[in-house]
Amino acid sequence: MSKKYVYAFGAGKTDGGAEMKLELGGKGANLAEMSKLGMPVPPGFTITTEICTFYEKNEGYPDSLRGEVAASLASIEKEMGAKFGDTQNPLLLSVRSGAPASMPGMMDTVLNLGLNDETVEGLIKRTDNPRFAYDSYRRFVSMYGDVVLGLKPESKFDEDPFEVLLHAKKKARGVELDNELSADDLKELVSEFKGAIKKQLGLDFPEDPMEQLWGAISAVFSSWNNMRAVEYRRIYRIPANWGTAVNVQTMVFGNSGDDSGTGVAFTRDPANGENRFYGEFLMNAQGEDVVAGIRTPQTIDKLEAINKQAYDELVVNYKKLESHYRDMQDLEFTIQDKRLWMLQTRDGKRTGLAAMQIAADMVDEKLINREEALLRIDPESLNQLLRPVFDRADKQAATDSGRVLAKGLNAGPGAASGKAVFSAPDAVDWKKRGEQVILVRIETSPEDIKGMNAAEGILTAQGGMTSHAALVARQMGKVCVAGCGALAIDYSKAQMVVGGKTVKEGDWISIDGTTGEVIEGQLKTLPSEVLQVMLEKTMKPADSPSFQLFDKMMSWADDYRRLGVRTNADQPDQAAQAIAFGAEGIGLCRTEHMFFGGDRISAVRQMILSEDEAGRRAALDKILPMQRADFEGIFRAMEARPVTIRLLDPPLHEFLPHSEKDIADVAKDMGVSADKVKQRNEALHEFNPMLGHRGCRLGITYPEVYEMQVRAIIEAACVVKSEGIDVHPEIMIPLTGHVSEMKITEELSKRIADQVINEKGVKLDYLVGTMIELPRACLVADQIAEHAEFFSFGTNDLTQTTYGLSRDDVRNFLPFYVENDLYKVDPFVSIDQEGMGQLIKMGIKKGRGARPKLKVGICGEHGGESDSVEFCHREGFDYVSCSPYRVPIARLAAARGALRDKQK
Amino acid sequence: MSKKYVYAFGAGKTDGGAEMKLELGGKGANLAEMSKLGMPVPPGFTITTEICTFYEKNEGYPDSLRGEVAASLASIEKEMGAKFGDTQNPLLLSVRSGAPASMPGMMDTVLNLGLNDETVEGLIKRTDNPRFAYDSYRRFVSMYGDVVLGLKPESKFDEDPFEVLLHAKKKARGVELDNELSADDLKELVSEFKGAIKKQLGLDFPEDPMEQLWGAISAVFSSWNNMRAVEYRRIYRIPANWGTAVNVQTMVFGNSGDDSGTGVAFTRDPANGENRFYGEFLMNAQGEDVVAGIRTPQTIDKLEAINKQAYDELVVNYKKLESHYRDMQDLEFTIQDKRLWMLQTRDGKRTGLAAMQIAADMVDEKLINREEALLRIDPESLNQLLRPVFDRADKQAATDSGRVLAKGLNAGPGAASGKAVFSAPDAVDWKKRGEQVILVRIETSPEDIKGMNAAEGILTAQGGMTSHAALVARQMGKVCVAGCGALAIDYSKAQMVVGGKTVKEGDWISIDGTTGEVIEGQLKTLPSEVLQVMLEKTMKPADSPSFQLFDKMMSWADDYRRLGVRTNADQPDQAAQAIAFGAEGIGLCRTEHMFFGGDRISAVRQMILSEDEAGRRAALDKILPMQRADFEGIFRAMEARPVTIRLLDPPLHEFLPHSEKDIADVAKDMGVSADKVKQRNEALHEFNPMLGHRGCRLGITYPEVYEMQVRAIIEAACVVKSEGIDVHPEIMIPLTGHVSEMKITEELSKRIADQVINEKGVKLDYLVGTMIELPRACLVADQIAEHAEFFSFGTNDLTQTTYGLSRDDVRNFLPFYVENDLYKVDPFVSIDQEGMGQLIKMGIKKGRGARPKLKVGICGEHGGESDSVEFCHREGFDYVSCSPYRVPIARLAAARGALRDKQK
Repeated sequence: MSKKYVYAFGAGKTDGGAEMKLELGGKGANLAEMSKLGMPVPPGFTITTEICTFYEKNEGYPDSLRGEVAASLASIEKEMGAKFGDTQNPLLLSVRSGAPASMPGMMDTVLNLGLNDETVEGLIKRTDNPRFAYDSYRRFVSMYGDVVLGLKPESKFDEDPFEVLLHAKKKARGVELDNELSADDLKELVSEFKGAIKKQLGLDFPEDPMEQLWGAISAVFSSWNNMRAVEYRRIYRIPANWGTAVNVQTMVFGNSGDDSGTGVAFTRDPANGENRFYGEFLMNAQGEDVVAGIRTPQTIDKLEAINKQAYDELVVNYKKLESHYRDMQDLEFTIQDKRLWMLQTRDGKRTGLAAMQIAADMVDEKLINREEALLRIDPESLNQLLRPVFDRADKQAATDSGRVLAKGLNAGPGAASGKAVFSAPDAVDWKKRGEQVILVRIETSPEDIKGMNAAEGILTAQGGMTSHAALVARQMGKVCVAGCGALAIDYSKAQMVVGGKTVKEGDWISIDGTTGEVIEGQLKTLPSEVLQVMLEKTMKPADSPSFQLFDKMMSWADDYRRLGVRTNADQPDQAAQAIAFGAEGIGLCRTEHMFFGGDRISAVRQMILSEDEAGRRAALDKILPMQRADFEGIFRAMEARPVTIRLLDPPLHEFLPHSEKDIADVAKDMGVSADKVKQRNEALHEFNPMLGHRGCRLGITYPEVYEMQVRAIIEAACVVKSEGIDVHPEIMIPLTGHVSEMKITEELSKRIADQVINEKGVKLDYLVGTMIELPRACLVADQIAEHAEFFSFGTNDLTQTTYGLSRDDVRNFLPFYVENDLYKVDPFVSIDQEGMGQLIKMGIKKGRGARPKLKVGICGEHGGESDSVEFCHREGFDYVSCSPYRVPIARLAAARGALRDKQK
Repeated sequence: MSKKYVYAFGAGKTDGGAEMKLELGGKGANLAEMSKLGMPVPPGFTITTEICTFYEKNEGYPDSLRGEVAASLASIEKEMGAKFGDTQNPLLLSVRSGAPASMPGMMDTVLNLGLNDETVEGLIKRTDNPRFAYDSYRRFVSMYGDVVLGLKPESKFDEDPFEVLLHAKKKARGVELDNELSADDLKELVSEFKGAIKKQLGLDFPEDPMEQLWGAISAVFSSWNNMRAVEYRRIYRIPANWGTAVNVQTMVFGNSGDDSGTGVAFTRDPANGENRFYGEFLMNAQGEDVVAGIRTPQTIDKLEAINKQAYDELVVNYKKLESHYRDMQDLEFTIQDKRLWMLQTRDGKRTGLAAMQIAADMVDEKLINREEALLRIDPESLNQLLRPVFDRADKQAATDSGRVLAKGLNAGPGAASGKAVFSAPDAVDWKKRGEQVILVRIETSPEDIKGMNAAEGILTAQGGMTSHAALVARQMGKVCVAGCGALAIDYSKAQMVVGGKTVKEGDWISIDGTTGEVIEGQLKTLPSEVLQVMLEKTMKPADSPSFQLFDKMMSWADDYRRLGVRTNADQPDQAAQAIAFGAEGIGLCRTEHMFFGGDRISAVRQMILSEDEAGRRAALDKILPMQRADFEGIFRAMEARPVTIRLLDPPLHEFLPHSEKDIADVAKDMGVSADKVKQRNEALHEFNPMLGHRGCRLGITYPEVYEMQVRAIIEAACVVKSEGIDVHPEIMIPLTGHVSEMKITEELSKRIADQVINEKGVKLDYLVGTMIELPRACLVADQIAEHAEFFSFGTNDLTQTTYGLSRDDVRNFLPFYVENDLYKVDPFVSIDQEGMGQLIKMGIKKGRGARPKLKVGICGEHGGESDSVEFCHREGFDYVSCSPYRVPIARLAAARGALRDKQK
């Protein structure tokens, strides 16, 4: 027996079912399923996705296919009492794509197939409606001419050739709307369309319905590889080898008269998730008319008054479908001569808010359980509940009036308006004067931290999704548009030119970090309700359904997740925010941010400019009390939660001034010559600072720096512990690559820590561990674990070294790589599980082999990305750590990881 | 029975033997072995190295040790007819260290032990020589006071306290030499020495000989961890856990009268390997007198006239020892009262030349076979035969007159003199005028290539052993001193200040790339004979014994090695050199060097400055014929040998000018504005160029560049093939990290190559493969191997990314790491087998898993380092590739790898 490639469907009888999505595509599987449920599905058949792969390989169709198609066609003819190609009562067909994953509008469709100069007469006879028949015919010819025969506009600046003819016809007849054309006009158009095809392509329009059918089937299969579809698959990570199925189905007409109509509906509100039947329809129209927006559709409830039987049947069907599929459905239906036909059902797209609302309601309705509910929510969608947004009307007005100036990377979600400033000190000054500012920089550096903090949002001309600006902005929860190449910034004039307009210092601009748009002028922004409740406390929980929803999701997630979730925070206020979002500790407290700021930076510079250890120690003595105070603040904010503090990591030259003026100022402050500052700058200059004198290499060559930091940490812990808070400091060594580095820094840390504990006479437990952010650290993790009580994977740097990619230098090729599918996903966004993942697994296995109780976490940006969090769950991490605003996402992703484990 | 910790030795009887080096140390094992051979060894015993490890761990000595020592001592007393501590005929002992590996002079020794105020009288009675007895006594007290009791100079600026007293005594007695002091003077000194110990340390000098003995034993054990010893072990990679043994031996005195004497001898000439008895001696002296150089020793042949019996016995012994040990021996002997005593034998140190000569002679003498001969030669020592050298007298004169100005890294061995120039164009100009120059730069860049080539040697202030200057110098065979921090170079004045002197442009300087010295003025240099024969052809092979020796070693090595040896060469002359040295192909031909040079660089810049692909293609069309001509030259030089050509690798900004003047010049040449050049420079600027837009990332974003290069390679191959040479081009893709990169560039390469082959109608085989120089490439090597016919490990970059270390930025910490033993060896010098080695193994295993016949090579600098070459042999590489001058070293190392396999 040869393999089965064709599956029939139709009311009450089918070979397929919803479980066959991979073979039949989503549409075909659901048509089969609706058929099984006894719904009025226009009969048809599905050709499996397997044929698409034959077709793609140019292997031709298998021998048995034509026979199967013919048999199915015969069966439809019998069912419908009509014949394909018949001149009296012709069966007309639609031919549509249907892939295993939804790819709406990406592939091609042919409707009204089977019409020719003879069968059109049969259609007229059957419907007694020549205008309808010729309208269907001209639609078919243009659709077929475009999709199958390939008659396209010559360039993107030209109009569709069929539209041109249609337009000319309307002009000649002195009418404005298509439906003002007569049957004869439309008949002429059919002929003119065919003429255009002949003239431009040299092809005769196929009159043979079977030839039409096979042409359409092949065209739909080949549309799997059109540019739009390929692009869509890339974005949504749909495998190219899945292929599409082809659905051949009896045409039903919503435009065959006033008793006909067509509509789309959702079983719940896709915008907010409300449990109500939601949709719209048009009488005497085809599906495309509903979408085209020429006539305004009616809301679905109005259908009851027009055709109660059909409406009631539709209501029964939608309820049956939703409870059958146990999810919100997106339906298409047509009414032909008063009779309801169900054309499609599928899981409905919805906003993040709706997804949560629907999932929560369905749990209440006992339609699904909590586990299913959590698995239905994309963790990223939580972001929609957390970000400030522009007032919708304001934004629309700005768009309509052409005030969107440029688009950059949507690096920090949310919306912000402010007066443009072009330097960090200006941002601080303006903020002090009570102004609201957007900091605009070519790129940002650690020196800009205070300015970034003072700004409502950050806009940069260079740098990617993980550039300094983007990283810091996300950590601060600031709105950020990065890498907006269209900005021509001129610091000397304190202005930029963008989209042909000049934005001067003090001019209002707005940036949408969710879309990447840069907008002229001021727009009204609103914080989300969740934040108003949780952080601002300006709203009560009871007053905010969206907060309640958020809170419910989070509590369910926490019930299931095993993985801990910590935050990356350097300041008490960030720590407090993160706790509100559910952080269970700090996974990465960077100490270098504490090295900036008025008094400190000059002490830090004094240290760097010192000739010898004694000079450095004198400077460090000034920094010690300030660092200690910082740590005290953080420990108090975090209470009994663990706090992982990374010792100094960045190269020292980041702390020195670089412009002539700054150098002169610093030299004056320090009482040294400008030449000396310059010399030190030169001595510290590095060709590849990422791979230079930083991390523990600093702490080993200048042990007095790490000694000061460990002392500050442990002294602060002793102080706060004395206040009755059970402090858990974890000292983290950066950039370890060799066991010797870990051994030396572990010894240093323990020596100083124990000394301080002895001095203070306070009982205090602490850990010493390391970042794992170099390939070599993974390779010798067993040795390193002998001296480290925890590993925290620094996946930003690990990605950089594993790939040999500097995240600051990818602008000229990484976008190209991602667009052209060289990388399935930007490895700075989601952990490269295939490559770097091997190093991480090796690191954990070796590390735990040497120290079974080794605590393992991640503190790179990936710690807040849902796929990466699930990876961390699977690989047995103890916790992930991410920026405060991503803590909820990590909590949900962690729960989903645990639930997927359970499913296995 | 308790474990044995003490092994006795003495003429004709012993418990130990030469095979027990690990337990008895080299000295103890050889004393035992000489005893076995019946030689006159002063009786004694060895305490095993195991005790050293007890001692180190502060575990104390095992209970049984004292008993064993006492028993051995009793046996010696019996043998010598003397008693330890006896007032009539006292036995005196030496206590010496002796580790499993030779560590000459690193640890402590105590002689004449057993003397006190009573036993000294016995010694006087026995020898009838009070002066000798008190001289021995005062030497013992000062040695014991220093080594065991720890009376040292207070600082390194102070004199030895015992020397101070000795000096005072001589002054008081009005004499100049030690031996002008009388027995009474020396007796007073003993007392004064003891007084100084009491005064400064508060210790009474131990009069009890047993207390003396145990004090000395412990002191020698603890000297295993003195700073000198630890440093020595680090340099020679001797494991710290080996420990030292302690040898306690009967004292024999070469200074007990005119019938006594002492000497050292080698069984062959250690400088040139000549087979003759070589050594020197002094009558009436102790060993230290021979070394101290106060009296001039006599050559060994003079001994025959003084004491024929002892001399004849010594000759019998040396011949017996050399044939017994089957290696050149380094002997110590003493004659006491006319009687010969053998004190030590060990394998003698020798120069590289001597090592080869002795090994070759011993093969002729059938003492050893060729395999043993090869295993005895350190491949690095071949360098000594290949490098130009300073005239010895000239160099000595320069050193004596203080003209050595500074010391840098010995980055490119050899000797060079020339006039200092401070820019590459100057080097070229001066060379054209017939001048001999040393190019002095803060650091070098690819733009300096021509200047480096024009110079005799290169001197840089920054950069390590694998900096650009060092790499290129070694590849060119140029002398190079790199990273000489003491240079204060001022380009604007064309001068430098170093060692307090100003060296101006045109001043003669000399650099010794073998020692790192920078010397003022001109020194005479000579090329090695091997080069005069092989490359300069100014000497006939028959006239040069050292060439013959070299040639013999190489031909033996080639008989045993499995591993292929290729060279890294970019130019026909380098290729020819490498072939002379035995290279079997080119493993790395860098194409970027070909992008510099008059006409080319302007076309390259035109390409980089182009706005679009069309502009780039126009520029590339100009470069094509030049690249093709380059490849033709290389193919012709290499004849039928395979040539691996790497497509463009460095970031484009390396080709643009950076100084204002150069920018202006280039802009003028190109007919564009200087601003445009600057803009392009800025657009191409990278924070971490090592991790930026380079390697295949360039070829993928600008495919036209790789297309041009592949076309140039294959066109050239077709031309040369048509001349009857069987060309084997191998196209190598740099910096592959993801299978997609390999897939795209493989397709591009094959498409263009096959197109050219079709055009030319020439039958040509070629390969397409890749550098493996990123950790990720090793992790997904199976995927990459599907599209690559060969892997060439680029271990320079792989080291950089595995460690997260930029080799250009290590100056502030890598030297510290190596000095302080954090890294056992600089990973840029020798492959990090422990860490990166895992990635290499994984890469090969996965690669060959996917493509069993995958060709595997290495083209990093490690390919010419002997340990790394042996690693490559073990791991199944097909070939190593290194700079021409290191090809002989690689050949020998490859043979040694194969021989070690055989030994297993």
